[in-house]
Amino acid sequence: MRLSRYFLPVLKETPSEAQIVSHRLMLRAGMIKQATAGIYSWLPLGYRVLRKIENIVHEEQARAGHLPMLMPTLQSADLWRESGRYDDYGQEMLRITDRHGRDMLYGPTNEELITDIFRSNVSSYKDLPLTLYQIQWKFRDEIRPRFGVMRGREFLMKDGYNFDLTKEDAMYAYDRHMVSYLRTYERMGLKAIPMRADSGPIGGDDTHEFLVLAETGESEVFYDADILNLTLGNRTVNYDDHAQCADIVREWTTPYARTDETHDAALFDQIPEARRRSSRGIEVGQIFYFGTKYSEAMGATVQGPDGQAVPVHMGSHGIGVSRLLGAIIEASHDDKGIIWPEGVTPFHCGIVNLKQGDEEADGACETLYSALTALGLDPLYDDRNERAGGKFATMDLIGLPWRITVGPRGLKNGVVELTCRRTGESEELPPQEAVKRVAEIYAPIRAA
Amino acid sequence: MRLSRYFLPVLKETPSEAQIVSHRLMLRAGMIKQATAGIYSWLPLGYRVLRKIENIVHEEQARAGHLPMLMPTLQSADLWRESGRYDDYGQEMLRITDRHGRDMLYGPTNEELITDIFRSNVSSYKDLPLTLYQIQWKFRDEIRPRFGVMRGREFLMKDGYNFDLTKEDAMYAYDRHMVSYLRTYERMGLKAIPMRADSGPIGGDDTHEFLVLAETGESEVFYDADILNLTLGNRTVNYDDHAQCADIVREWTTPYARTDETHDAALFDQIPEARRRSSRGIEVGQIFYFGTKYSEAMGATVQGPDGQAVPVHMGSHGIGVSRLLGAIIEASHDDKGIIWPEGVTPFHCGIVNLKQGDEEADGACETLYSALTALGLDPLYDDRNERAGGKFATMDLIGLPWRITVGPRGLKNGVVELTCRRTGESEELPPQEAVKRVAEIYAPIRAA
Repeated sequence: MRLSRYFLPVLKETPSEAQIVSHRLMLRAGMIKQATAGIYSWLPLGYRVLRKIENIVHEEQARAGHLPMLMPTLQSADLWRESGRYDDYGQEMLRITDRHGRDMLYGPTNEELITDIFRSNVSSYKDLPLTLYQIQWKFRDEIRPRFGVMRGREFLMKDGYNFDLTKEDAMYAYDRHMVSYLRTYERMGLKAIPMRADSGPIGGDDTHEFLVLAETGESEVFYDADILNLTLGNRTVNYDDHAQCADIVREWTTPYARTDETHDAALFDQIPEARRRSSRGIEVGQIFYFGTKYSEAMGATVQGPDGQAVPVHMGSHGIGVSRLLGAIIEASHDDKGIIWPEGVTPFHCGIVNLKQGDEEADGACETLYSALTALGLDPLYDDRNERAGGKFATMDLIGLPWRITVGPRGLKNGVVELTCRRTGESEELPPQEAVKRVAEIYAPIRAA
Repeated sequence: MRLSRYFLPVLKETPSEAQIVSHRLMLRAGMIKQATAGIYSWLPLGYRVLRKIENIVHEEQARAGHLPMLMPTLQSADLWRESGRYDDYGQEMLRITDRHGRDMLYGPTNEELITDIFRSNVSSYKDLPLTLYQIQWKFRDEIRPRFGVMRGREFLMKDGYNFDLTKEDAMYAYDRHMVSYLRTYERMGLKAIPMRADSGPIGGDDTHEFLVLAETGESEVFYDADILNLTLGNRTVNYDDHAQCADIVREWTTPYARTDETHDAALFDQIPEARRRSSRGIEVGQIFYFGTKYSEAMGATVQGPDGQAVPVHMGSHGIGVSRLLGAIIEASHDDKGIIWPEGVTPFHCGIVNLKQGDEEADGACETLYSALTALGLDPLYDDRNERAGGKFATMDLIGLPWRITVGPRGLKNGVVELTCRRTGESEELPPQEAVKRVAEIYAPIRAA
């Protein structure tokens, strides 16, 4: 993309309404614009990152064998009356009346609707196991929306639902979800720690939240520092292998890690003091096993092997897709702006032309641009007639992890400059070497 | 995908509520399920096609240089009061009150919101031209929703908006949209005819609707049969070339083609009788130039080259993304079911194992499945323990354009059967040849 043809309305001033750094930076980098309280438009740069995050979620769910689908944003109130949640859910549920006076609502979650789909279409244990998921907009009418996309009212969420014959099968689905979520966050450059959580109004015994450590997190968290060393890395995961999934879950759930809701001070004190940590965290996902709560209430049964009808065991599993942009920025920025992890960056690298209009510099930039594009990479070429300082400031603000700087002086020596956003380190090398290096950096990301 | 692991709840009975064939077939093929009147859930098979259509729209908009973004589904009523449309829009607009008593609405379209984004961020003619678009859910509270996704209440639409300094620039944007839409429909295997239309409440002089011919269409249309021969084919389009875009528009708008709203009987009669056609059509898109209607009402001005503030020239352009599934099926089916065009088929080909459990047949199917997958193709392998007749009926119903049938008898002679869904013609050939043929069939589709 050429910046002269892009829509990147960066702000020089820090918007006064933004209290946390991710909100400030998303506004300043021209990623989002508030439409009304807690509701945002995603400008082209923000939309690109949102799509990258969505794609990673889709890819990892596909690997785990979960099936994508899509439910509508608006639902009839009837199903929620059946489950009993229509009255239980408070004012956070946006209730709507259509032109015929029918009660509807903007879905804050979809247990009822998916259970209805299940019970209408599945009647035998032979059609199990089944895990369906979607990435769809949800609405929760927060009384005080704030922190930008971190606590918005209209937000994008991945929600998945498993249907199984037995508790054992459902726990295998639980394990698959934990493993696929760990992979998902790792690809986004995030350290998200699964923490034993409280099930709250959704019900059920087993639930873990995934928390990203950040000062601005809404939860207080307590954990064993050893958990920070765990990584899936290049491990090959075979989701058909129950034991492997269970082993990975065991590995991640053995070290102590809890939110304040489930914190157990006595257990925590058994960890060697040097490894005891408490800090704040941002919740970016949660998995639940809730047994037959919804299937019993809504009559979602299957005929078992013995011919008897049994309610299915269910779980639901969520990732806060739009919220993740905020969480990633909270975890990865400096005083100049955002620092995107390579896995989610909106463009793979920036090209800064120090002397727009100079024949040689323009030509070198065009060559770089074509070479990167031909390799399937997305560069953002700042081809505007601006001062170098302004171009650098924009690139730093929007946080592309790599930048190639092209100027007449370097070109005289046959080199351009490749700069790492995170470390600030630069290296001079011939243009074709810079292209090769950028391609090498992204090779493992693109193979993931 | 292996059918044993998929969720494909096909219906044997024809649902009584469905009046038109696309609605019937989408329900029977397990593509959608009604959630409530005019609101549908997209089951995995339907979702796959929806995503394919979305992707084609995105790719063609990217080619035309238009920038993707995303606006929220819910909007504040304030902007609509500013444009004057809050009161003008009737009961089709779903009006909502949030917990603080603020008036909101579920966007039926987005001229107001995009104009607000524009005026907040763009102030100079130097930032023009600019064309932004999104693919997002909309809501229109139809009094009698019907015909499935063809006239639903919650529907997915691509809506794009251009901002230009002059009428001439805006007409170039208009041309780009017409060309990109022609390409979009062609890739979906549709013959969509641009017809001079009536601008209606959106205002403006220039507008074309794109109509797919089908008996169940809601519009009466009149056209010169010559227009059916036009095709872009493999033509290389350079969207930076204004003249080329204008030429293509001229080519498609020269033959007479109008809806009943703009039909001119006297003009129509000038066409040689043998070429005069009237039939019915389904609207799948519309493009508008509406000048300064919104920019004046909402103060969307830029500083021109002479320093004076001038309102920008705008247009808006829509494609009915979810509706397209219905339109494609209306245009492409037979009495056995759907016949997907190769460009949008949910799976590239089916594999039917005539004798599940037979070692040789199972092995041959696995080999085919791996070989197709390795080439980046998506086969759907019916590995269920069902009778051949049931498997064929399912494949015909869901409409995969190509099917490979594998049975012990053929394997004895070293062959499988490759069948074209559209013609019903079959050919026996060695398995590896079948893989090669399928790959060749899709090569131009995937290069598009």
